[in-house]
Parts: sequence; C-alpha cells; structure tokens
Amino acid sequence: MDKKTIAVFFGGQSTEHDISILAGLAVMQAIDRTKFNVEPIYIDFDGNWYNGEALKFPNTFHLSKAIKKTLNRVEFPIGRNFENDRPHCDVISRATFFGDKKIYFDVAFLAFLGAVGEDGVIQGVFSTARVPFVNSDVQAASIYMNKVLTKMILRSAGVPVLPEITLRRPEVGMLDISEIIKGHNFTYPACVKPVNLGSSVGVRKVENEEELKTALVDVFRLDFEAMVEPFVENLVEYNVAVCKAFDGEIVCSAIEKPTREDALLSFEDKYCRGASKGKLGEKFGSKFGSKLGTIISGENRMNQGMAAMGREMNPAELTAAQKELILNSAKIAMQVIGGAGTPRVDFVCNSVTGEIWLNEINTIPGMLAYYLWEASEPRVPFTKLIDALIEEAYRSADKLRRNVDLKSAKAALFPDR
Amino acid sequence: MDKKTIAVFFGGQSTEHDISILAGLAVMQAIDRTKFNVEPIYIDFDGNWYNGEALKFPNTFHLSKAIKKTLNRVEFPIGRNFENDRPHCDVISRATFFGDKKIYFDVAFLAFLGAVGEDGVIQGVFSTARVPFVNSDVQAASIYMNKVLTKMILRSAGVPVLPEITLRRPEVGMLDISEIIKGHNFTYPACVKPVNLGSSVGVRKVENEEELKTALVDVFRLDFEAMVEPFVENLVEYNVAVCKAFDGEIVCSAIEKPTREDALLSFEDKYCRGASKGKLGEKFGSKFGSKLGTIISGENRMNQGMAAMGREMNPAELTAAQKELILNSAKIAMQVIGGAGTPRVDFVCNSVTGEIWLNEINTIPGMLAYYLWEASEPRVPFTKLIDALIEEAYRSADKLRRNVDLKSAKAALFPDR
Repeated sequence: MDKKTIAVFFGGQSTEHDISILAGLAVMQAIDRTKFNVEPIYIDFDGNWYNGEALKFPNTFHLSKAIKKTLNRVEFPIGRNFENDRPHCDVISRATFFGDKKIYFDVAFLAFLGAVGEDGVIQGVFSTARVPFVNSDVQAASIYMNKVLTKMILRSAGVPVLPEITLRRPEVGMLDISEIIKGHNFTYPACVKPVNLGSSVGVRKVENEEELKTALVDVFRLDFEAMVEPFVENLVEYNVAVCKAFDGEIVCSAIEKPTREDALLSFEDKYCRGASKGKLGEKFGSKFGSKLGTIISGENRMNQGMAAMGREMNPAELTAAQKELILNSAKIAMQVIGGAGTPRVDFVCNSVTGEIWLNEINTIPGMLAYYLWEASEPRVPFTKLIDALIEEAYRSADKLRRNVDLKSAKAALFPDR
Repeated sequence: MDKKTIAVFFGGQSTEHDISILAGLAVMQAIDRTKFNVEPIYIDFDGNWYNGEALKFPNTFHLSKAIKKTLNRVEFPIGRNFENDRPHCDVISRATFFGDKKIYFDVAFLAFLGAVGEDGVIQGVFSTARVPFVNSDVQAASIYMNKVLTKMILRSAGVPVLPEITLRRPEVGMLDISEIIKGHNFTYPACVKPVNLGSSVGVRKVENEEELKTALVDVFRLDFEAMVEPFVENLVEYNVAVCKAFDGEIVCSAIEKPTREDALLSFEDKYCRGASKGKLGEKFGSKFGSKLGTIISGENRMNQGMAAMGREMNPAELTAAQKELILNSAKIAMQVIGGAGTPRVDFVCNSVTGEIWLNEINTIPGMLAYYLWEASEPRVPFTKLIDALIEEAYRSADKLRRNVDLKSAKAALFPDR
C-alpha cells in the first residue's frame, strides 16, 4: 500500500502561535514514518502559508531570513474539486526553480491552538474542500472555544458547571465598563475570563468591583465577550483527555492534578514553566519576543511547558464518586457536542467541600495531551495516539461527505421522481 | 467614494442547492446597483465555482452547456494575505482569452441554504481569509444548523423548547434501527427530524414504532443524527425574523403564520408551492431533475415558493403574552448564540392550550425572509435590508480580526515585556 501523506498544519494568526509550533513539531517527531510521509505547513502571523524541510524538525525550525528563503509559499485552493484529484496545496513562490509545484497530502493534521485554528474556522476550509482532517469539526470546535455556550449545553445535559454572567464589549462606541456591569449582581471574589480564548489566557481573580473593572478592560482587549464566575475557594484542578478514535467508543485518559503555587493556573504556568527567560522569540520568527521561543531551541526541551509542568497523575484523594463524575462529564462533553481528536476537559474542585464543576474544554490541548495518554491504563504511546487520530479523520470524512450522496437524499425526499 | 463590489455566493453541495439559487438571484435583483457592483459566484453540485454575467439575472440563469461555456471557473486561495490586497477569486479557466484574471470583491454575501453553506463551514473559508461576509459566523451558523444543540443552549437560557431524544446513526457497522431505539421511551404521535438539516427536510410525523422505524431509515439517509420530539397537537406555526444589522439593537420582523393543509409543513410546501410540476430541473444544471428549477425560469415567478406560500401576517389570535414570548425568545436566540444577518426563528404552538415552543432557527432563511421585513412596522424594503446586512458584515469584520492586534494582546498578557 502506498504511504499516506499527512500535512501537519501549525502556527497561525493566534496569540497561541508559539504553542502551536510546539504541538506541530511534537506531532511530526512522534508520527510513525514507516506508515506516513509528512508535509509541514506553517502559517505565519500574517496568514501566509509555508512548506519546507526546515519546518519539520525542532533543531532546524528557526525562521531566520536565511531559513525563510529555503521555504516555499503555498496556498490551498477553495473551489477545486478534489474528488478526482488528490488534495494538495499549490506552490505559489518557490525557494528554488526546481521543485514540486503541488504539495500533495491525504489528511490534514491540525495542530493549531487558539483562535483561527482551534476555533473551528480553519476546519471550515478543509470541510468545504472535503479533505479529511484530524481534530474536532467546525461545530464542536467553535462550541468548545466558547466557554459560555459549552456550559449552557452541558448544563442542559446535566453536567455540573458554575453559574456565569456574560458581558459583551460594545460593537460600536466607547468602552464604558461601568455601563457594561450595571444591573448585574457580582459576589466577590470572582473569576473573570475571556469567553473565546483557551489556555487560561487573560483569566483573573478579582476581589472587588475596582479589580473587576480593571480585569474587564484587559479581557476586552483580547475578546469581545467576558464571563464572570464565582471564584472557587480551596481550588484544585483536575484534567482529563477524551478520545473516540481508538474503536469508536469514547474513552478517557488518566486524570491529572496540576500542581502550582498561584491561586489560578496562569498562561505562563501552563506553557512557560521550565523555559529559560530571555528575548529569544524573534529567533523563531515571532513578531513579538516570547520566551516560548526558547522551548523550541532543542529537541530535549520540546516537552517542556504544559507537558513538563508539575502534576500528579491519578490523584489518590479522588473518591470513586468524584472520579465517576469527572469521567462521565468528560464523556458527555465529547458525545453531546460531537468532538473528535483528543480534547482535554478541565474541572475545578473545592477541595474542602468536594464539589466539582466542569470548567472548560480544550479542543486541541497543549501537546495534544499526549502525556495523559502515556499515563493511561492501558498506556497509549504518542505514536499510537497519532495513528488513531489519523484513522478517525478518515472515518469522519464520511461525515463531511454526508451530503455528497445527493441522489439518495433527493430520492428519499421526492420518492415520486 | 468607489463603489464596493459584493460577491453573491449561492448554489453549493447541498440538498437545498436550488433554493439557494433562488435566494442568490433575489439578492442580486434587489441589491442597490447605484451603491454596489455585483459579482455572482455560483457553486455547482460538484463544488466547482463559477463566475459570469449569465449568473446574475433570473432570465439568463440557465446552466445549459452553451451558457456554461460563457462562465469562468474561479477559485478562492487560502493562505494569501488580503490585508495588503483586495480580496479576490483567481480565474483558473476563462471562457474567453481576454478577460479578468481576478474577480475582486469587498464583501461576500452568502446566500446558501442547507449544509456546506448555511452550516458554518464555508463561513470558515471567509473567516480564515478575513473577508467580511454577510450572515452568521462559523459558531452561530453551526449551532443554528443543529436543532438539538440550539435547544440545549436555549433551554439553559430559559426559552421554552420541547423535550427531545437524540439518536445517532452508527459510524461503523450496519444500520440496526431496533438497536438504536432500544431503551428509549417514546410516546406517540411523535415527530422525527434530522438534527442537522433545515427547511423541514425529512421531517415526519409517526403514530407508532413501525412508522418511527421507517422514518428513521429515511432520516439516516440524510443525516447522522435524528431527534424525536412529542408531536404538538392542534399545531399552528409562527415564524419571525431577527436582525441586529439596522443599528446594533436586535429587532424582530412581523410574525407570520403559515397556512397549509397538512399536519406538518413539508419541504415541498415551503418551497415548491406555486411552481408548476415538471422535470425541468436539468435545464438549470441540477444533476437531479427538480421542479424547483421551474421557479427560476422567469422573473415574475422568482418570489414563489416560500415567499408566495399562504400565510397570515401578524395573526390577530396571538395574545400580548404570546407575542412577547415569541419576540423575546427570538431575541435571546440571536443574542446568546451570536447570530448575524437575518435568521428566521420558528415556533410551534398548540392552538388549544396556547402553549408555544421555539422549534428551530434558520440561519439563512428562504428568500432571506424579506417578505417578513416588508410586512414589518416600520416597513423594511428588501433593498434596505440588503444594505444593512452589508454594513453589518463590515462591522463584524472587526470581530474576525479580533486576534490581529496580537501586539496589544501580548502586551496585556505579558506587561513586563
């Protein structure tokens, strides 16, 4: 059988650009090369797409001008029917005169994090073109990205979630926080979050109205919607990944308890831990210096950040009932919203009262949560997880094509014709 | 000021292809040509995109081989940064040697109905490219398309909706309806619907388990999910369109009560009424003969189907409380799920008990529900509605670009850098 080619897409016009690079490189490292060829497609901050050998490996991933000259700019055409042609990107400007004009691939492996990638938007590109892709589809991804809609659906499905107040930045006019919070009853301490960003980006604990106002100004720089929830005292977090790629049944990974010093797990905690300080981001082509860049500088450091963060696996203090609540809630979140890939479902717990609430769902979690699957019983190595996700993409390509069989559909609708 | 160009997209790989053609032609007819230039982009059943003069008008819209020869095949490139270039489609095969190589446009007006169009998928293409587009975004469109998720969210928001049982077609293996319905308690009569299709496609009333099984076989030819609801006795339907394009506030159109003979408003009722019978579909390039094709054959008949269907505007029997329930529920459906354009929100009512439930939301309703706005107080002519929708697309392009200001976002996240 011919080897299939997996195009790994990463980067993107997102605040989580750098974390996506880590995920993309990790996937390309772990993928079974005896089964699959790999084509990296890197999307820069401006939305330009690149392909090239240098993008494949952590030790060569280095978007200096010299390296960028070795890359090809590519585009993906919408309006071309791939049913009689293998999916491909067109090379629109080549680094060398000789080289491929088309980058063929069979499956798109989406390793994006954050908006325009994890949020269902780029999934629309591959769905429109009917190219199989790894990870949740337009619908599930766009819902998971929205913390409020996720909670409303799961509340309706009987999953425990905290109450919330949703606040919207005005579409036109000045930002007047006093006006926005008028008429709402907040109890403090409260937790302020952007509705549409993942990775704890912009999450703040506030103790009073002044702090709430300051936090909202910050959130509205990031997102047009903010939510305010009661702050959970004696906070402990538990995360679990879910997947239905192995045999169609939804299964859960090991449960992790992140360990940290602050009251709230911050963006930097989740992704920057272990990385040395410094302004090396520019080395990696990021427009904005970021210490995340340093993580990419060597293969040994690849698994730092989220994966290297302090954590306890399968924490012993969880009662059977708590564990069941976590696993069942995670499965419902996958089933009802129709996710694919390996979303990570995050819970918050008041460790004194024992209460647990589903907090949020990460469509494409940092490092694809591979470390949770490697700690599962039975253990799922990252390479095996990737295999299963690619298989699932093929299976659900059938779902993408659900309207292709128009003849059969029309026959059912108009049996007399 | 230069005239802006509006690209009207219609057709598509959907069971509602023909109805979308009607909507596209109606928009192009009504659009203010003193303000806007128009480029039609027609998507055929195979997913190929076409542009050409013949596509603009009902009296020339006729996809015979001869006409098809006058059209250009076009593609929309993903991975090209349109921030320094006006959005455009590339012409990939031209009808004549001389002619434009690029079809420039400023706003994409999506006049799709049904899957891959109304469902948020093609919205992902324009969102990825950051091109302003008319009608709901990826998130709202994908939720509105799913009747169950819409109900779960709105139930959580306090909107009255009927209870439902969701059934899934197995992803692998044979279709065994007995196995699928096992363990559920159904009461008859019940109403069986595909979860992810609009326009009453495939909706059936069933009186017993045998009929349920037969209906489910049909539904699973159309969709991978089916829902079963209690059938509403003494059924009356009320529809209302919502829009926030006029000044940012969500407003409602006139309320209509469709009048029909059958127990359930069928697909053919909604769209085929007034069209003569015949197998003229092939004349219009549809792979499958469809009487809908006949509707397009002359300007005078353009507004038939949904728009010409029997209906009563602002029905007098509605009490103030019922009317308020309908209008408030419709506004919540728009607000909470974040819709744009002019979705039509459909309600069912038991006319004896007076109970009302929100039934479903049509992201892009037939003929954009222009007739409901023309019957509103104050009256909104179709041309004015289109103007407002185009303005709204520009305003929400800001939302699309919410992550463009990464510098500001990073500064908020990492103030020390």
